Amino acid sequence: MRVIDEAELRRVITPQVAVDVTRAAFRADGEGRAHVPAVINLDVPSHRGEFHVKTALIDGVPHVAVKIASGFYDNPAKGLPSGSGLMAVFDATTGMPVALLLDNGFLTDIRTGAAGAVAAEALAPAAIATVGVLGSGLQARYQVRCLRSVRTFSRVVAWGPNPAHLDAYLREMRDEGFDAHGAATPEAVCREADLLVTATPARAPLVRAEWLRGGQHVTALGADSPGKQELDAGCLAAADRVVVDRLTQCAAFGELRHALDAGLLRPDRVHAELGEIVAGLKPGRTNARQLTIADLTGVGFQDTAIASAAVAALA
Amino acid sequence: MRVIDEAELRRVITPQVAVDVTRAAFRADGEGRAHVPAVINLDVPSHRGEFHVKTALIDGVPHVAVKIASGFYDNPAKGLPSGSGLMAVFDATTGMPVALLLDNGFLTDIRTGAAGAVAAEALAPAAIATVGVLGSGLQARYQVRCLRSVRTFSRVVAWGPNPAHLDAYLREMRDEGFDAHGAATPEAVCREADLLVTATPARAPLVRAEWLRGGQHVTALGADSPGKQELDAGCLAAADRVVVDRLTQCAAFGELRHALDAGLLRPDRVHAELGEIVAGLKPGRTNARQLTIADLTGVGFQDTAIASAAVAALA
Repeated sequence: MRVIDEAELRRVITPQVAVDVTRAAFRADGEGRAHVPAVINLDVPSHRGEFHVKTALIDGVPHVAVKIASGFYDNPAKGLPSGSGLMAVFDATTGMPVALLLDNGFLTDIRTGAAGAVAAEALAPAAIATVGVLGSGLQARYQVRCLRSVRTFSRVVAWGPNPAHLDAYLREMRDEGFDAHGAATPEAVCREADLLVTATPARAPLVRAEWLRGGQHVTALGADSPGKQELDAGCLAAADRVVVDRLTQCAAFGELRHALDAGLLRPDRVHAELGEIVAGLKPGRTNARQLTIADLTGVGFQDTAIASAAVAALA
Repeated sequence: MRVIDEAELRRVITPQVAVDVTRAAFRADGEGRAHVPAVINLDVPSHRGEFHVKTALIDGVPHVAVKIASGFYDNPAKGLPSGSGLMAVFDATTGMPVALLLDNGFLTDIRTGAAGAVAAEALAPAAIATVGVLGSGLQARYQVRCLRSVRTFSRVVAWGPNPAHLDAYLREMRDEGFDAHGAATPEAVCREADLLVTATPARAPLVRAEWLRGGQHVTALGADSPGKQELDAGCLAAADRVVVDRLTQCAAFGELRHALDAGLLRPDRVHAELGEIVAGLKPGRTNARQLTIADLTGVGFQDTAIASAAVAALA
């Protein structure tokens, strides 16, 4: 069994590779070729910790990955990262272990960024000038890096709750060639953005419907477990197209959950799962005036797809 | 992250160690300290394969293990074992990966044997002369090896459907110091046994109630997934004490399932979960005339317990 570390994975899984692999995975899902069992969630309340285990089979992909991710929120006080984990990769035709990916979360980060790009490819206007970002963490970075594979843009406007983190983020984006500016409020970002990415752990809405407009695309990815919310429920009600990565997950704990709870959206108003659009079964954006929202929670088939690609590239 | 292979694990996890660790794990479960989320089952029908993922947290145990086991039933034709898998071990206080146990199923085998011993310790008569075994596979071996930690006996009588496998098993048991004999039928084993272990993948009952008697103990462990059954439902109805490792699992796919389906046992006739007896909350066997049956399906806390013990012993 091969043990592969983060540096090796970073060498082969570039944003472009991640976007291509993730697009293919969503297409497979849209075509009914992705099989995703319910995840395991194990709480460790005595240490403010949790484990999550995800896996999936994709017909036509030669591996099955089992991803084990942990979040322990007292870790930073101990000098440790709050998130950790690994992926175990198995041969999908024999069940034999093939590789252990000690990615320190890198593959999850980049496949999440890539899903944002796949959503933008399907839903964002063809021409965008400004990408707006709420948040200044890892996903603020990966979303922008991956978007480059599907849209041409140079301007990034970002807001984050921590000024030092926001400054560091803006410097890093400038180093990567973007014209990056900070904004004083989430509203200012929403007003400027042609494409808005919300990438925060917010547990109360940061974005109000009245700050959005026709012609924008919004990718919301912070709400990945119960209690998290970045968009007020009115945003989804106002959108011309609401697209989810997985209906069951988004209805349980994505942005969609809050809109359903508020009675502002009926489940049949959800336009599509993203895979249905990528597979050509439903249209994405059909005109320049639509407000589109993608609600992304992260699905196990993304992990199997990116892990299999990494193992294949390093074989 | 340390990678530990089967040979290292075999060196530190003896049957005696496994029984001690497993007894403590059942006690923890009885005391409400074991937290066991639902397992992941992922089928791969195109290759007659399946993956199962189990995990558990035990308050007071320093690690959490995630066990990934695969069964691919076309593998033997390819020269591969049908079963494979591994355990990933994490620090239960920080979520950080600690070790990868490439055990090839050894830890599952020995913890399953150890659970049989813990059940026998609680339920079998104090004095037993003959251990009867149905089956001649790995569990036929591990059950007998682990029973030695809790009862003194020298005679083993076994039946198995494959004469060559049975002969190999009997030779191996003799090499380990037992007075081991083959029997022509399951009935003959049942009639001779003071303690009966059923360890087959049977999908139809092998044991009839009328072959059992008061004063015997039966540990049934073959039924670990839907469709498997070793005891006719009348056995459980005839028993003075039916004990399960996990009520939810046994009612779903253990021997208990068949007795419930047949209407021969009401759920409130189940005497106890094994952990409740080990924790002293309920009695085990209380006299020499009782017929006792333990229905074991294998629970995630057994994996966390044995994996943590292995990692601690090799630290």
